[in-house]
Amino acid sequence: MVNIKTPVIIINSKAYLESTLDNEVRLVKICEEIRNEHGVNIMYAPQMVNLAYIAKNFNIPCLSQHVDAIEPGAKTGYTSLESIKAAGAIGSIINHSEHVITFREAEFIINRAKNLELIICACADNINIAKSLAALNPEMIAVEPPELIGTGIPVSKAKPEIIEKTVEEVYKINKNVLVLCGAGISTGEDVKRAIELGAKGVLLSSSFVKAKNPREKLLDLISKI
Amino acid sequence: MVNIKTPVIIINSKAYLESTLDNEVRLVKICEEIRNEHGVNIMYAPQMVNLAYIAKNFNIPCLSQHVDAIEPGAKTGYTSLESIKAAGAIGSIINHSEHVITFREAEFIINRAKNLELIICACADNINIAKSLAALNPEMIAVEPPELIGTGIPVSKAKPEIIEKTVEEVYKINKNVLVLCGAGISTGEDVKRAIELGAKGVLLSSSFVKAKNPREKLLDLISKI
Amino acid sequence: MVNIKTPVIIINSKAYLESTLDNEVRLVKICEEIRNEHGVNIMYAPQMVNLAYIAKNFNIPCLSQHVDAIEPGAKTGYTSLESIKAAGAIGSIINHSEHVITFREAEFIINRAKNLELIICACADNINIAKSLAALNPEMIAVEPPELIGTGIPVSKAKPEIIEKTVEEVYKINKNVLVLCGAGISTGEDVKRAIELGAKGVLLSSSFVKAKNPREKLLDLISKI
Amino acid sequence: MVNIKTPVIIINSKAYLESTLDNEVRLVKICEEIRNEHGVNIMYAPQMVNLAYIAKNFNIPCLSQHVDAIEPGAKTGYTSLESIKAAGAIGSIINHSEHVITFREAEFIINRAKNLELIICACADNINIAKSLAALNPEMIAVEPPELIGTGIPVSKAKPEIIEKTVEEVYKINKNVLVLCGAGISTGEDVKRAIELGAKGVLLSSSFVKAKNPREKLLDLISKI
Repeated sequence: MVNIKTPVIIINSKAYLESTLDNEVRLVKICEEIRNEHGVNIMYAPQMVNLAYIAKNFNIPCLSQHVDAIEPGAKTGYTSLESIKAAGAIGSIINHSEHVITFREAEFIINRAKNLELIICACADNINIAKSLAALNPEMIAVEPPELIGTGIPVSKAKPEIIEKTVEEVYKINKNVLVLCGAGISTGEDVKRAIELGAKGVLLSSSFVKAKNPREKLLDLISKI
Repeated sequence: MVNIKTPVIIINSKAYLESTLDNEVRLVKICEEIRNEHGVNIMYAPQMVNLAYIAKNFNIPCLSQHVDAIEPGAKTGYTSLESIKAAGAIGSIINHSEHVITFREAEFIINRAKNLELIICACADNINIAKSLAALNPEMIAVEPPELIGTGIPVSKAKPEIIEKTVEEVYKINKNVLVLCGAGISTGEDVKRAIELGAKGVLLSSSFVKAKNPREKLLDLISKI
Repeated sequence: MVNIKTPVIIINSKAYLESTLDNEVRLVKICEEIRNEHGVNIMYAPQMVNLAYIAKNFNIPCLSQHVDAIEPGAKTGYTSLESIKAAGAIGSIINHSEHVITFREAEFIINRAKNLELIICACADNINIAKSLAALNPEMIAVEPPELIGTGIPVSKAKPEIIEKTVEEVYKINKNVLVLCGAGISTGEDVKRAIELGAKGVLLSSSFVKAKNPREKLLDLISKI
Repeated sequence: MVNIKTPVIIINSKAYLESTLDNEVRLVKICEEIRNEHGVNIMYAPQMVNLAYIAKNFNIPCLSQHVDAIEPGAKTGYTSLESIKAAGAIGSIINHSEHVITFREAEFIINRAKNLELIICACADNINIAKSLAALNPEMIAVEPPELIGTGIPVSKAKPEIIEKTVEEVYKINKNVLVLCGAGISTGEDVKRAIELGAKGVLLSSSFVKAKNPREKLLDLISKI
């Protein structure tokens, strides 16, 4: 079992114009500094094509935004776990609401990741899917109601029972999984509330990546933990 | 119309274990040196997660191995044309035999790439698909019979008529497309023969990436052009 | 080259609640009667699971709404050309805007269909894709701007140049293809206009399937041809 | 909770040439007769395009081989739960090894099926996936190691621990699920052994569909239960 310092803040830069390479460098520098100064466990998931560049040039744990269920080989344009590890990532997000995968893919990836000592954060649209993923034993499960993603309406306020119930139900199936939450988290208050409800961390994206002042925003986001 | 110096040698590093980051750095250095010393137009398509790292650290035109038919935005784990451009790529391979795409995706990507001044090398399993792609006006079409990929049996020897016929048929539909060929190309003789048959370049992968001595192999491959 | 009597009216019942089995039986009876009485070449594409039932019980040429690029075999839940032929279909729609396919799939299906004497109606979102499909030589190409599908705004009125230009461009690549048009066609006037613009027929769906009075609607639709 | 008489024998006719319409009619007649004469709970999953034809013409419970995670509507070529119900099916197989689906699709289908009183048989490649599916509460889970499918090497002999362990692990998560097994089951002895190991039924395909004498084969298969 991997030891992940909690609460964990995962920043997913998605495929925004605001996170193409030069922009992403600015964003990751902010994360790197705040991580070091404040001792908060911030992980950063850069754009796929930026992964090695970011992971090798900055001192922050990086996740891949996605990884394919493949062995290394003749698979043009696909990305193996071995490749993200060599690129410097410590693991990967999988099954994000914007990039859902099959049971077979998830099972393959989660097992192979363990052999490679990579960590997996599997995303779930709802409690049922969180339970289903828990049975496959990823290190983290992030529950994110897709209808709240990018809205600024925090799941911790709009549907607090989703967090509480997911924590409860996931732990019945698998006690080793850290339950995170995402979707709409955009203030320090939202993060605090999520943690009070039982989440071990949060998954953030637009609130930071598209912020007018990303540094201030991130400082606010971590201010109450 | 983009001006691409021909013959062009495109190296696709796929998702081989032999092209994960540290290995890829060694491979790209060889390509960079030979490109500069011999004046051959070598382009390099690194692993997706290595793209920015390779494109920003080495002096060689880089292609993405694949690109998704998306606008920049909330698309976790997908890669836009804008992102590969920001990462330093000059364009992308699409529809590789190992990563086929839809008509809608190809049309979107090829048009959007033109606006961004990125070049597209579209791959075709056979003459019919080459013609179909030609109607969408990519800069390059690489015909690669999938049954020969990775075999070391060069298409220029096993099925020379595929190259000749593709050149002929593609040019009937679109005079601006450069026709390349791939699959099984592993010697300088194969490359020479492909060019004699009308190809404007070749698409290489395992013969170089998995070579015992990649430098010698690449020197051989370009020796007769 | 298959001889298809033009103009041809293809009715695609999609996956509407209004075309589940009992409803579909009522709809197809109307089509069958009007076809016989008025001598108009109406083809009917029922819901996938209704195909054999409709094709075997009614006297109207049936198309499959989709077909998979597979050889018969161990492919649970997929549908081969051999299976639709045995079920009584005379061919299939492919690459509908709601069900797009790859170049490889289209090439496979169009070629295999010819060997089985099945006809293919390939759909295209726009002129470029119509040209791309024309190179693969299907019997019919239906151009349907997806933004007009289901709107009741006929392509023949909103974007007449799409029909004219598609006819012109497709014929440059392939003289044997019948160009149809779809999207928003909902009156006899729309059908007439489409044919005046060069279309050899139309692809209809919601205007008939969801009509309050489907018989009246279909009589109107064919009234000016 | 739906009451399914066990042991249950599900016959999946896949997309074999041996199960295109006329052949399928012969096969289903055999199943119908043996079901009625022997009182064994045989369910039949015909080819997609044959579903309504078979379900409406024969007196045997039919399953769809697959169903799409869609609401009824403008989804050309896709199949809703509402459509299979109207076609006469009592439910559907999902996530067959040859047709895997995402977590999101499975969750959607299983929940919607309950509202429609349709039963779902979800397939799993292995124990982990069986557990993952169990959390979503389908009526049946069929564990089928894909490497044994179509081999004639029965899972009940080659990997008996898979059946026992799946039964045990699935019941920890969900006591209401019937665990079936498949892959390589081709004799009455195999069926008997599967049931002794805890399976509540079997999923059969090629051993019956491709048998020289399907009637004899089916009689053998049910002979020891």
